[in-house]
Amino acid sequence: MTGGTGRLGRRRLLGAASLAGGGLVAGAAGAQAVGATRAESGRWTGRSIPFDGEHQAGILAPPAAHGRFTAFDLEPKAGRAEVTALLKAWTDAARRLTAGAPVPGDAPTGYGPASLTVTVGFGASLLRRIGAPVPAELEPLPAFPRDAIDPRRSDGDLGVLVTADDAFVVAHALRVLAAAGRGTARPRWQMTGFSTADGTGATPRNLMGQPDGSGNPRPDDPGFGRKVFAAGPAWMRGGSYLVFRRIRMLLDDWERLPRHRREQIIGRRADTGAPLSGGTESTAPDLRKQNPDGSLAIAASAHVRQSSPLSNSGATLLRKGLSYFDGYRPDGAPDAGLLFIAFQADPRDGFTRVQQRLARADDLSRFVRHESSALFAVPHGCRPGRYLGQDLMEGR
Amino acid sequence: MTGGTGRLGRRRLLGAASLAGGGLVAGAAGAQAVGATRAESGRWTGRSIPFDGEHQAGILAPPAAHGRFTAFDLEPKAGRAEVTALLKAWTDAARRLTAGAPVPGDAPTGYGPASLTVTVGFGASLLRRIGAPVPAELEPLPAFPRDAIDPRRSDGDLGVLVTADDAFVVAHALRVLAAAGRGTARPRWQMTGFSTADGTGATPRNLMGQPDGSGNPRPDDPGFGRKVFAAGPAWMRGGSYLVFRRIRMLLDDWERLPRHRREQIIGRRADTGAPLSGGTESTAPDLRKQNPDGSLAIAASAHVRQSSPLSNSGATLLRKGLSYFDGYRPDGAPDAGLLFIAFQADPRDGFTRVQQRLARADDLSRFVRHESSALFAVPHGCRPGRYLGQDLMEGR
Ligand code: HEM
Ligand code: HEM
Repeated sequence: MTGGTGRLGRRRLLGAASLAGGGLVAGAAGAQAVGATRAESGRWTGRSIPFDGEHQAGILAPPAAHGRFTAFDLEPKAGRAEVTALLKAWTDAARRLTAGAPVPGDAPTGYGPASLTVTVGFGASLLRRIGAPVPAELEPLPAFPRDAIDPRRSDGDLGVLVTADDAFVVAHALRVLAAAGRGTARPRWQMTGFSTADGTGATPRNLMGQPDGSGNPRPDDPGFGRKVFAAGPAWMRGGSYLVFRRIRMLLDDWERLPRHRREQIIGRRADTGAPLSGGTESTAPDLRKQNPDGSLAIAASAHVRQSSPLSNSGATLLRKGLSYFDGYRPDGAPDAGLLFIAFQADPRDGFTRVQQRLARADDLSRFVRHESSALFAVPHGCRPGRYLGQDLMEGR
Repeated sequence: MTGGTGRLGRRRLLGAASLAGGGLVAGAAGAQAVGATRAESGRWTGRSIPFDGEHQAGILAPPAAHGRFTAFDLEPKAGRAEVTALLKAWTDAARRLTAGAPVPGDAPTGYGPASLTVTVGFGASLLRRIGAPVPAELEPLPAFPRDAIDPRRSDGDLGVLVTADDAFVVAHALRVLAAAGRGTARPRWQMTGFSTADGTGATPRNLMGQPDGSGNPRPDDPGFGRKVFAAGPAWMRGGSYLVFRRIRMLLDDWERLPRHRREQIIGRRADTGAPLSGGTESTAPDLRKQNPDGSLAIAASAHVRQSSPLSNSGATLLRKGLSYFDGYRPDGAPDAGLLFIAFQADPRDGFTRVQQRLARADDLSRFVRHESSALFAVPHGCRPGRYLGQDLMEGR
């Protein structure tokens, strides 16, 4: 794809999910509308995104209002048998919860499934633990200039992304998964993100105030599948590599900038999300366009120029970020930013290539700090009756 | 009121808010429904709860899906003039944001107001700073048995409760308030809570899985106003005292209990919320009711017995708690529980009296830890053109 064609909004991705076998259906919890206040909401909190499909559902699902990312570490004694049992238990729980069905032994909440997705990935350390070869794509990400990574909030044997349009549903699903994993895996770190419950279909905004996701590739772009989904080994065919970065925003500095400076740094308008080269949000940024005075419409160091596939030999990422705001740091600055989550067929040709450039040449990088980092191999989705990662556990 | 009449659901409180001059109107942001996924939600995220009214709107508003509680400390040099300017700025910002109107100089998010409320309270230390008398109701809460209070996450000169049905709207409003306060007040601590976006009108559940709020007093109960709203001084007439407690739940212990044990400890059914003495959620618990074998239907140490006004000389609280789940503690336990928020005319006849009993006699207290504590005087609401706390600042 080029920077020029890969634009998608929530509705496009939604359509894509349907095409990929992940279409929306009314959940088992049904869709009654009672009560006065958020009555209509009852309808969409009853929505279900099927768990089973070619790809794990969190990859192509529309942007969710809430998400939690949790890294788990295996207990010292857990080996192949325990990991297999864990993956079976998680698959069973996720299949039920995403359908709005109760999990045996669990007190039902009465909420959901609210478009719940559960997406599970494997760290290189898990593959080593079970004696499986580590794909070259899963080699550790390099250190980047300006990185300020906290190792205690990075990496992990397993990475689990839970998203839904209801915060309680997300919290509850994570409790169920953690309970199902007890004895085999324990949470190493957990981060909580949010977007908006606004249902207008507009691209969600990040905490810097910009629509974030406008330039995402869309499933009908030429080469989308090849760039986002891995080709092999068998357990990864239709899977994807997930890069996680907790990126703090220096919001106090950012908000001191006048609006036109902020827009220059991004390369898009703050209100509409349209590229500074003109058009609407869905118009491709024209990186060569000049202003009447001969200057570049999208500045040389603007984020959309530096991150564009055109500047990175075609490197393409499917970004599914969520905002976080965890209160205030000891220095008084907000502990807030982006839980950056990107899917790609090979991080070396995706995140790593782009971030090498951004860390050096992107104006935005002076307003952000990468504070944690992780990389997981997200195996392909399940067919009914099978469990996540089954091909890996069976040596395929 | 008695434990027998004070039952309310979301719709009742909503009605109450309307009676109190806080009825819901469609916000300036309008209520279009476009897009496919959460299309209907666009309607309720456009809802507005008026800022102006006899009481601050957060007290009688229906349960919100999201909230953040922030304590601010005044900068060392801030005096009466600076506090006055701060309250004017916060009033102006809150009035605009709750109406869905832009704040000058702020990049509009395009979301909301999503039933946003902003409720401001004063700590005793603020009154001392400006040389105002400290009401006896605002004397520090006593230490209770089993307390495990962290002073760095307790108290504060100002307490601000921001709630809305959209997480982004809450985060944005807090950013705007913090920016408006800069130079005069800085965040001391901040906590984030959630409930559910489910719009069925059912009482929201806490993370222990129980409907929480069933026994709340309702505005048409005899004596409601007298028990919840303060009578004076002038700046507090129609105001209320807000007790904040961060109460961690020992969820791993709790979830190990069989369901009937959990229900005994609370005194209500986990599924329907009905008292164990019979009836439905809205039936008053009958504290004298006996089982066929002569045992008490609601156990002697059950939470609803020990917290009931009948056991506490009529002590009445309006509870507006939110769940929190901030990941995992170093010991692996979830850092999760209840941001307990209660309004009352006098904490000595409300929270303090009840908690004295609960800390000693309530079975539930073995499954919770009170980790932070604060008390704020929430002045009465505003008329248009006036600012929050104006009577106090003008010496009334
Ligand atoms: C807090 C940090 C970041 C913020 C606030 C941010 C924000 C944005 C915004 C506002 C846009 C324009 C709208 C859009 O296309 O989504 C954008 C585009 C993009 N960003 Fe970022 N970004 C951040 C970090 C990153 C990182 C770490 C990468 C990858 C290493 C990245 C890769 C991209 C890509 C590939 C595009 C699309 C470029 C195009 O084809 O137009 N961003 N980002
Ligand atoms: C994490 C801690 C707590 C949990 C999980 C909890 C949970 C519950 C539940 C499930 C109920 C029954 C449903 C309802 O009426 O809302 C209830 C009732 C009640 N709770 Fe709590 N509670 C907690 C702490 C407290 C504290 C600290 C107080 C006050 C000091 C309190 C005061 C009350 C009162 C007054 C009632 C209503 C009693 C009645 O009239 O029936 N609770 N609580």
